[in-house]
Amino acid sequence: MREMKEITLTPIGVIRTPYAEANAAPIQGRLEPEPLGTVEVFDEYAPGLKDLEGFSHITLLYYFHKAAGEELLVKPYLDDVRRGVFATRHPRRPNRLGITTVRLLERRGNVLAVAGVDMLDGTPLLDIKPYVPLFDRERGSVRYGWLTDKIRPAF
Amino acid sequence: MREMKEITLTPIGVIRTPYAEANAAPIQGRLEPEPLGTVEVFDEYAPGLKDLEGFSHITLLYYFHKAAGEELLVKPYLDDVRRGVFATRHPRRPNRLGITTVRLLERRGNVLAVAGVDMLDGTPLLDIKPYVPLFDRERGSVRYGWLTDKIRPAF
Repeated sequence: MREMKEITLTPIGVIRTPYAEANAAPIQGRLEPEPLGTVEVFDEYAPGLKDLEGFSHITLLYYFHKAAGEELLVKPYLDDVRRGVFATRHPRRPNRLGITTVRLLERRGNVLAVAGVDMLDGTPLLDIKPYVPLFDRERGSVRYGWLTDKIRPAF
Repeated sequence: MREMKEITLTPIGVIRTPYAEANAAPIQGRLEPEPLGTVEVFDEYAPGLKDLEGFSHITLLYYFHKAAGEELLVKPYLDDVRRGVFATRHPRRPNRLGITTVRLLERRGNVLAVAGVDMLDGTPLLDIKPYVPLFDRERGSVRYGWLTDKIRPAF
């Protein structure tokens, strides 16, 4: 069943980061010290930011605007083997959607200062969601497949 | 700067859940027992599922196809006060994007059996990402604003 053929989205803002080019960006926003960035929400969406400052972390949904095409098998940065793209965070994916949870440092009107960015400068912002441990933090043991011996153990 | 005016996405599959109507769906997929569902990935995207079975949890990105409009201030299910939509998970949000992390029980070809669904039956699937604690599970203390006294304490 494919009732819905196409979905049209409109950016609600832009993400500013230190990374002008793909090869300068970290693999995920978990470096120390955490890279700083700003989220500029367009004026007409600013009322939707009410109450956001109560949250220490927010999840940004964005568009990989510099992704060079879409592929189903990709060679991840952390591996030499081609993996199914849905088992990776690779940008070159169908629909080119990215998600990153960042720390919300400060809100100044429609501009958010954040820490832990890993996207390119100028990335179109599509949504902001509050990070809520009950919803977002998985309990107990988590298996993470091919990444198991590629990254340091989970805390 | 608004270089990018519109972004067009194409569903990569459909999510099957027990919830035919909005008022039957749970607020987030964290009920016990966890609601079961299936993720049907369209055939042409199936190669991208390679390696996914190594992950115990996956994050689904999807489109709130039944959302009745988009608003910047919404009354959340868990509150009587109107909140900024970006400080909530309310479906009636700009771009209508939803994210839910579910448990991956089994993969049968291009169909994934999952637990912890909270979206409506027939929801268009836009992306699947592996859940990786190092990237997705926030350490230390997390504040969650207006939700603090609305939900049971985070673990």
